[in-house]
Amino acid sequence: MEGNARSLKRIIDGVKPVDEQWVEKARERTAALLMPSRALGRLHEISERICGIRETLTPSVERKAVIVMAGDHGVVSEGVSAYPQEITGEMVRTFLLGGAGINVIARHVGAEVWVVDMGIIPLLDPLSLENGHRLIVRKIGRGTANFTTGPAMGSGEAEAAILAGFRFASTVLEGGIDILGTGDMGIGNTTASSAVGAVITGAKIHEMVGRGTGVDDEGLRRKQDAIRRGLEINRPDPSSAIDVLTKVGGYEIGGIAGAILAGAVHRRPVVIDGLISTAGALVAHLLCPRVVDYLFAGHRSEERGHGVMLSHLGLEPVLDLGMRLGEGTGAALAMGIIEATVRVFREVLTFEEAGVPGKSA
Amino acid sequence: MEGNARSLKRIIDGVKPVDEQWVEKARERTAALLMPSRALGRLHEISERICGIRETLTPSVERKAVIVMAGDHGVVSEGVSAYPQEITGEMVRTFLLGGAGINVIARHVGAEVWVVDMGIIPLLDPLSLENGHRLIVRKIGRGTANFTTGPAMGSGEAEAAILAGFRFASTVLEGGIDILGTGDMGIGNTTASSAVGAVITGAKIHEMVGRGTGVDDEGLRRKQDAIRRGLEINRPDPSSAIDVLTKVGGYEIGGIAGAILAGAVHRRPVVIDGLISTAGALVAHLLCPRVVDYLFAGHRSEERGHGVMLSHLGLEPVLDLGMRLGEGTGAALAMGIIEATVRVFREVLTFEEAGVPGKSA
Repeated sequence: MEGNARSLKRIIDGVKPVDEQWVEKARERTAALLMPSRALGRLHEISERICGIRETLTPSVERKAVIVMAGDHGVVSEGVSAYPQEITGEMVRTFLLGGAGINVIARHVGAEVWVVDMGIIPLLDPLSLENGHRLIVRKIGRGTANFTTGPAMGSGEAEAAILAGFRFASTVLEGGIDILGTGDMGIGNTTASSAVGAVITGAKIHEMVGRGTGVDDEGLRRKQDAIRRGLEINRPDPSSAIDVLTKVGGYEIGGIAGAILAGAVHRRPVVIDGLISTAGALVAHLLCPRVVDYLFAGHRSEERGHGVMLSHLGLEPVLDLGMRLGEGTGAALAMGIIEATVRVFREVLTFEEAGVPGKSA
Repeated sequence: MEGNARSLKRIIDGVKPVDEQWVEKARERTAALLMPSRALGRLHEISERICGIRETLTPSVERKAVIVMAGDHGVVSEGVSAYPQEITGEMVRTFLLGGAGINVIARHVGAEVWVVDMGIIPLLDPLSLENGHRLIVRKIGRGTANFTTGPAMGSGEAEAAILAGFRFASTVLEGGIDILGTGDMGIGNTTASSAVGAVITGAKIHEMVGRGTGVDDEGLRRKQDAIRRGLEINRPDPSSAIDVLTKVGGYEIGGIAGAILAGAVHRRPVVIDGLISTAGALVAHLLCPRVVDYLFAGHRSEERGHGVMLSHLGLEPVLDLGMRLGEGTGAALAMGIIEATVRVFREVLTFEEAGVPGKSA
């Protein structure tokens, strides 16, 4: 076994299941809170699962970080995106300047934003950029290859992408972050993510492919056709996460899978965003099914296929607002809701503390 | 025309429609933002409508208040609630102490909480209570009458309740509040709200009535039966908001209707909560259909009937999390999302500002 594969196996072995006894204790506290039984619906399940993840009845999700993984995609040359490939690098610069959607929402919920160059085409030098310390260069390659003519990357690159994501996210978590959000940037990455989703969930291509950043009918047909050809020529093995990532994935999708594994190993909740983050989650889940215990779906994307992916993972999204921006915006927005429910769990008085009698006999 | 009725008419005449030209200008700015066209889905509609309401392209919803209207209900003697009536007053005390769900969520989103005694049974003296300045006593009566044996209140009381809610909310708004949330407390008030909802929307009683704070099957039958008898004996006129509120409403429902009118008159967004707030919105809407331009549905309650009410008003909820606590919790939680989208609208760079080219030709 190669070194990277061995490291990955060690990581996977390090993911422990969430302790149901803590979830049960949390449910008991919820039942004592000054409100009708489970009156906050799904919010209670969120706070209780976080108690299980953190093994405490006083969890905190105050210190938040969103990691935006960026990568370019060779499949763009098939005309699958409404935007030119240069936008990927331009958006990375904008993230550092604090002017994009994810920056604003992260500021609003109190999350820091890190940008990881997992494999964009331009060579950005953090030292020469404003707020360059927020850009982490872990370039696996300068964009993937066009998967309609062969694999998107080498299998060694796929493993390296996951490990790079794992290691950077681990550093962030070890710095004291309570909750991690995943985000993405990469022109063409809804095509790669839909391909990953179709292979892993077994769904039909037309069920998985949407308009991404907004292609027209002709662009949508080109996307579906590119994925069909990519799957035919590459025949990815749906039981192998590395093979799927290698054949039709993306560097940032691998990085997100690694960040999710880091959350699980470090026992921290991870909030995933839309289609691309969830493709990363499918890869992480295929490597290690237990990661879902640590995952929260920030929102249901407007992008077709996202709902199929979430169902495959058994995740119910926090928000459903027709968003399809990516960048981690849905994850960051949901973090505010998740923090609210954790605070309710901790700060609402119990019937006993408030001296209020309970239900009528 | 009596004085109160005349005041009410003046208020209604003071509600102006939202200026669609400002909404259109806001849509133009959204289109220039550094993201694919309308990539944040329904969030854009929220920020654009707030631009219309405030007649500006730089709106703020930073200064937030939730007004919790409290009242008691005579219909509780029909066995319609899982909790004793004393809970209403106890919860009012807890709101002042800051220990209830609404307090925690309001703290989280940065909203102040005001509690209005619209007609609870106990005589609470603000001067003798901790944080008593947060309790506003506008007691219309000491609980409504049991509507299964006659009207819940006099028609003069119904008008007085709306006016009291209008006046207090106006004071809050004139104090510099940008966005108002409505909340409620009152054992028995899901029964009154379901009755109001059935009359105004024309829905069947069984479509409107849910388990409230958690009655069992027998309690649910008692609720439905109480409403059936209440509607038979009182025959509320579905075209008259005052008649509906008088016959089967509640003091806090009237107060909420008044607060909504205040938001519309003062041209501020109002975020409504669940079943009880939306019953108040139905009353306000029947008085003045234009108020819906100013309304945002914070969430879809788990309580049966709430969805019917929202459809009647043409409102799409921000959140859908199976909540059914009331107190304004769903409204407050949604305020955080609404503030995020307003900040995105203002703070995200345009393509031009970021120097990023747009879509491919």
